[in-house]
Amino acid sequence: MTTRIALIGFGKIARDQHQPALAAHEGFDLVATVDPQLTADATSTPASFTDFDALLASDVEVDAVALCVPPQHRFAVACQAIEAGLHVLLEKPPGITLSEVADLEQRAATAGTVLYASWHSRHAPAIEAAREWLLPQTVTAVEIDWCEDVKVFHPGQAWIWEPGGLGVFDPGINALSIATHILLRPFALREATLDVPGNCATPIAARLAFVDTNGAPVDAIMDWRHEGPPRWQIRVVTDAGELRLEEGGGRLSIDGDVRIDEDKDEYGGVYDRFASLIQEQRSEVDLRPFTHVADAFMLGRRRTVEDFHE
Amino acid sequence: MTTRIALIGFGKIARDQHQPALAAHEGFDLVATVDPQLTADATSTPASFTDFDALLASDVEVDAVALCVPPQHRFAVACQAIEAGLHVLLEKPPGITLSEVADLEQRAATAGTVLYASWHSRHAPAIEAAREWLLPQTVTAVEIDWCEDVKVFHPGQAWIWEPGGLGVFDPGINALSIATHILLRPFALREATLDVPGNCATPIAARLAFVDTNGAPVDAIMDWRHEGPPRWQIRVVTDAGELRLEEGGGRLSIDGDVRIDEDKDEYGGVYDRFASLIQEQRSEVDLRPFTHVADAFMLGRRRTVEDFHE
Repeated sequence: MTTRIALIGFGKIARDQHQPALAAHEGFDLVATVDPQLTADATSTPASFTDFDALLASDVEVDAVALCVPPQHRFAVACQAIEAGLHVLLEKPPGITLSEVADLEQRAATAGTVLYASWHSRHAPAIEAAREWLLPQTVTAVEIDWCEDVKVFHPGQAWIWEPGGLGVFDPGINALSIATHILLRPFALREATLDVPGNCATPIAARLAFVDTNGAPVDAIMDWRHEGPPRWQIRVVTDAGELRLEEGGGRLSIDGDVRIDEDKDEYGGVYDRFASLIQEQRSEVDLRPFTHVADAFMLGRRRTVEDFHE
Repeated sequence: MTTRIALIGFGKIARDQHQPALAAHEGFDLVATVDPQLTADATSTPASFTDFDALLASDVEVDAVALCVPPQHRFAVACQAIEAGLHVLLEKPPGITLSEVADLEQRAATAGTVLYASWHSRHAPAIEAAREWLLPQTVTAVEIDWCEDVKVFHPGQAWIWEPGGLGVFDPGINALSIATHILLRPFALREATLDVPGNCATPIAARLAFVDTNGAPVDAIMDWRHEGPPRWQIRVVTDAGELRLEEGGGRLSIDGDVRIDEDKDEYGGVYDRFASLIQEQRSEVDLRPFTHVADAFMLGRRRTVEDFHE
């Protein structure tokens, strides 16, 4: 059965990723888009609306929504969608506080709708193979290196610098969503430094020192001041050799031997998963990546650095 | 059956509260104290040690420990205690990250020991009566006012200003532990301001605007710059009248009519609870108060304020 879905928030991520993934997916039919920047046209295909109320009041029938609005607006829209009996896919991060996401989970359970807090990076081509290879190994050290040029990858996104926008953790949480998925042992933060521009509320860079339950260090560097090609990579040292994930999970190598090297198609996997959850009438809310970010804000020592101007 | 217990960390809270509560409690026998500042004497009653390893290596038999060390040291000691098969009571806050407390919970479950993340303020005399009175009411507004002079209540505690020390949330989390217990509806943070002295890592004051699942505002002010008598109070406006908790939960009044006014004996209740959990072989780890604090650090807008000197 096809799920009739609306994209709420029709900015960069919705146009670049969600729309093409939905067009290619036989389980979904994109029936509407909602964004204050759109021209309202309820008769177009998909129908377009400038606000969610207008969609709900229209004749367009929807079963589900994917929320691609900035995280600061996600909770209110999600509540409204759940109340209307719709299934909800949340882009990452799933909200601005852990508590509000726990509340959403409760609301969805009460309403009998599916809530899916998605982590798109977990659907990169090499992730499952990395997870399987690591499963029997003893991990002795992990290095996460997640550096990109904010001016290239987040042009004009003022909300990332506001409270709730997470700053460099907006991409960094992708690395944490991969690490919590492929590493068997949980890890917890022991020390962190957050570099915050004097004119911003959120960090432009972070250094994080986690330790896993076996005592192995899990170190992470996230930096938005990086210029040139981005580095989205995770190196895992084990007693059976060294695993490397590069290109955000598109390339996997073991001891330098490339095993997988594919172009990323993460959102196909995201929507496969959402379709399965809807079929099974089951929610999936894994808060571990977001909890690590909250821990980093709570425990991190802040340094004020140079003002940021785009 | 009496539980043989050791106090790990024998500073202000251990001497002021834990030691007298244990002396008065027939379910516990205080057999040892551990603190680097003590003079080691394994033959005294209770026996005293300068580190936990020395206690574990001694002939003194213990069934449980209460951790009164600063939160930055809690995790390592708790791991060691659980590994030694001991039941563990954690003073609040239960750690420096949410992730490490989740890990401890897992370790205790695996080892078959009891982990109790205690919230002493929940055992203040008027708390249960407040909870019962509120249960059938519709709450329309909540105001938390938690202001005290840090120089009076935290003399010489340098760790409160370090990462993981939580600053004003060290007392503030007591208010949040009460609020999460007496209010039926969960609440989540929408906006916060944190005032951080230029020479400190943690806030000296916080303003928090939560909203409950019914849309009612839950506003909180926490301020360590307050002089004179402390204000530890929560005001709950309902459709059936106004409830006030004052003196940290020692005094309860409804529409100005004082119903309970007792001296605080919170730690008797803490140890009653720990005894019950040990009897039932059941852990209790309610992370909601700590989650609200992590949310506040993640979402709060920081302002740098005047340096703090004791």
